[in-house]
Amino acid sequence: MAEELKFPTGLGTSDADSISLLGQDLAADLMGKVGFGELAFWLVAKRRPSSGEVRVFESVLVALADHGFTPTAIAARLTYLSAPNSIQGALAAGLLGGGSRFLGVTEDCGRFLASALAAGRTAEDIAGSGERIPGLGHPVHKVRDPRTPVLIGIAKEEGLYGPHLRLLDGIAAVHPKKLPLNGAGVCGAALADLGLPVEMLRGFALLARAAGLLGQIAEEQQRPIANDIYMTVDRNAVFEP
Amino acid sequence: MAEELKFPTGLGTSDADSISLLGQDLAADLMGKVGFGELAFWLVAKRRPSSGEVRVFESVLVALADHGFTPTAIAARLTYLSAPNSIQGALAAGLLGGGSRFLGVTEDCGRFLASALAAGRTAEDIAGSGERIPGLGHPVHKVRDPRTPVLIGIAKEEGLYGPHLRLLDGIAAVHPKKLPLNGAGVCGAALADLGLPVEMLRGFALLARAAGLLGQIAEEQQRPIANDIYMTVDRNAVFEP
Amino acid sequence: MAEELKFPTGLGTSDADSISLLGQDLAADLMGKVGFGELAFWLVAKRRPSSGEVRVFESVLVALADHGFTPTAIAARLTYLSAPNSIQGALAAGLLGGGSRFLGVTEDCGRFLASALAAGRTAEDIAGSGERIPGLGHPVHKVRDPRTPVLIGIAKEEGLYGPHLRLLDGIAAVHPKKLPLNGAGVCGAALADLGLPVEMLRGFALLARAAGLLGQIAEEQQRPIANDIYMTVDRNAVFEP
Amino acid sequence: MAEELKFPTGLGTSDADSISLLGQDLAADLMGKVGFGELAFWLVAKRRPSSGEVRVFESVLVALADHGFTPTAIAARLTYLSAPNSIQGALAAGLLGGGSRFLGVTEDCGRFLASALAAGRTAEDIAGSGERIPGLGHPVHKVRDPRTPVLIGIAKEEGLYGPHLRLLDGIAAVHPKKLPLNGAGVCGAALADLGLPVEMLRGFALLARAAGLLGQIAEEQQRPIANDIYMTVDRNAVFEP
Repeated sequence: MAEELKFPTGLGTSDADSISLLGQDLAADLMGKVGFGELAFWLVAKRRPSSGEVRVFESVLVALADHGFTPTAIAARLTYLSAPNSIQGALAAGLLGGGSRFLGVTEDCGRFLASALAAGRTAEDIAGSGERIPGLGHPVHKVRDPRTPVLIGIAKEEGLYGPHLRLLDGIAAVHPKKLPLNGAGVCGAALADLGLPVEMLRGFALLARAAGLLGQIAEEQQRPIANDIYMTVDRNAVFEP
Repeated sequence: MAEELKFPTGLGTSDADSISLLGQDLAADLMGKVGFGELAFWLVAKRRPSSGEVRVFESVLVALADHGFTPTAIAARLTYLSAPNSIQGALAAGLLGGGSRFLGVTEDCGRFLASALAAGRTAEDIAGSGERIPGLGHPVHKVRDPRTPVLIGIAKEEGLYGPHLRLLDGIAAVHPKKLPLNGAGVCGAALADLGLPVEMLRGFALLARAAGLLGQIAEEQQRPIANDIYMTVDRNAVFEP
Repeated sequence: MAEELKFPTGLGTSDADSISLLGQDLAADLMGKVGFGELAFWLVAKRRPSSGEVRVFESVLVALADHGFTPTAIAARLTYLSAPNSIQGALAAGLLGGGSRFLGVTEDCGRFLASALAAGRTAEDIAGSGERIPGLGHPVHKVRDPRTPVLIGIAKEEGLYGPHLRLLDGIAAVHPKKLPLNGAGVCGAALADLGLPVEMLRGFALLARAAGLLGQIAEEQQRPIANDIYMTVDRNAVFEP
Repeated sequence: MAEELKFPTGLGTSDADSISLLGQDLAADLMGKVGFGELAFWLVAKRRPSSGEVRVFESVLVALADHGFTPTAIAARLTYLSAPNSIQGALAAGLLGGGSRFLGVTEDCGRFLASALAAGRTAEDIAGSGERIPGLGHPVHKVRDPRTPVLIGIAKEEGLYGPHLRLLDGIAAVHPKKLPLNGAGVCGAALADLGLPVEMLRGFALLARAAGLLGQIAEEQQRPIANDIYMTVDRNAVFEP
């Protein structure tokens, strides 16, 4: 069947002589002139961030890159052990754990705050409602998550402490349980204050984690532990029907 | 069975009060002070790069982030269409195409040069051998890949034009086929000149592509085309046994 | 730290001389004596199915195995094109599209019926409520999904037409919109009538699809189309900011 | 651009009234009449297998379905722990470990034998060459892999003990190291004797493993251990730069 097809994109295009990205000349205008974090922001938001926005954004990515032997890091290492020729498979396996439980709080918190703001709710109302608040409380850092004050400080320094961070801070201040703010949740509020779409917040957590997983895989290449983990589990297996 | 277990890592560790990454205090020493590309380098190389190294490294990541509607970008969009609740699955599906054919030349070129250097081979010897040289030639940019001179220029500006880039340049200069250097291959040579392990070069291409795929997924959220691609294929399906 | 570890499992264990699966001797009791579909049922349900149950179960797997050029099939082929050395990556990429939109109706329908039955709701009540009913209606088979009467017939022949199928049939009979039952939804009801856990119904759809994806990948090896799909999209790309 | 597109397939096609698979009417001719293993064979080989071929083929799938707490099983469980809403992600993560090291021997052995037969090599020649022979030797079953004699026996009963199995048996008989045949390797030889393409042998191992991984995920839903594995690793982490 003869047909007219058209697939629009504002990202990359190329022809024999040039490569274009985001409407810019990739080689002449971007390489060596734009940072990698800056480009990641630009690719999603379709606008170039200011230097202050880049600083907050990269602080978030740095905060979320690696947390040691998380289930995702272990899954990536075990997959590398099994299929060492396919580093893309090990990275993908690690990222697939970026779901609701371990990497989800960043997006959950940003979405929660965005919809609370859209509904005109106050910190007092939310804190008093008894509902579960994503970003409040942390399983390990029960008194204070060290990332929280630092990220809030950076946002204030850059003039980017906006309504999402303010509402989250407000909720923590008046909440009866006196729980600390979870750093990963604060990251979600900070990203939302940068105007990034809340549907993509988990995506940024995944990008940050991709860097951490590369570190895990590189360390596994040089000082492997995945086989020890596997053997530890296997030799303590007990048959129970 | 009672046993002594020990899993060493030089990456992230944490306790109730602090989070440590690469032996640094994550909140006090890294957030807001280290860029995201810089951290990715550090996580893999286990050493902090100089500012010149960061510039070359981020230029490579920028060069490789997105090339429009590649098979990996299309696969990520189709997966997002099918499973919109699992952005990690769409990202992983896109990265899984980061194999030998489309994203492989960066690592292939770096490995080839590293082993040629280890064997003490010269550009003339390699160019005259008739063997296939990863990084020489490009399916689209048949005269000149615009990324090539820019990346080589940045490496020279930063004093990081080392033996891998020099050998690759030398091969192109004397090769009888007068083929252009592939920009993605030049990226591999530049990363190898930064002292990064050649076993991880594909990993950096994947990290770069993760940012590009986020852009593709965000665009798919806002101006979708995956359903059109699917319908184009489906309505032109023809049964042939 | 010395510690006691214990990881219980009712699945596979082995030692130097024997391999055990589900408490059976794999080589002596299972190989050549148990079908593959039968084993898949047993692995999840932890009980051996009757021959009638196997027939219904395998009918469902056959019904869901392949539907031609779905987004998942196209994603698998594109991933194979990009990374032909990692067939596991192409298969995984295809399965990652097994989410809420294209492969989800099987589980959604089974879950919906299970919770309606638990709540003691009737077909009349559900059909009259105006709520969306997973499994009712199909985007292509607007009059009748040919799988529906066949699967219901098989379940009746085997004496396995139970409360989930009965409720779904009842809803369709009294629903004001006179929509046909979606075959993939009926599959979910049939699996639920076999006593399989509703949390795993999507898993069976994925297993079925794994076989279909192998067919797609094998066909891609022998008569490739992924590059044509890619080129079709790429050459019709239009830059729109 | 107006263009003629044509995407041929011998697998699934459908229209408003019918669904066709492999040129058969899915509902009328396949559901309830063809087993799931039989269909998987047919989808890849594009021919319907005989009942003897189905028995050998399903014996192989049963032999490879699950081996307890392999790295792939652990990776799938950890991914399920992290992202319980995306069962497709947990399954995909598990399959991504199906690479060269743990699931690769089936394909490696089949390929090795096929190319040895094509080259007209004898068992004596191969056994005496000193080269590594995929399928000979097993890390756990050092004397005898219990799957080996059973699978060879089934192939003989069904008249499907062909040149690949015969050559592998011959190699083991004359090899100076007196190593046992690895059951997973024997599976590859048996699949090759069924005329299945050697490029797809890893694919069948992955299909078998998909069933095993569903069992692992279902068990993780009902009696979880992934969090214990994670905590075991995490609490024994030791910082070493």
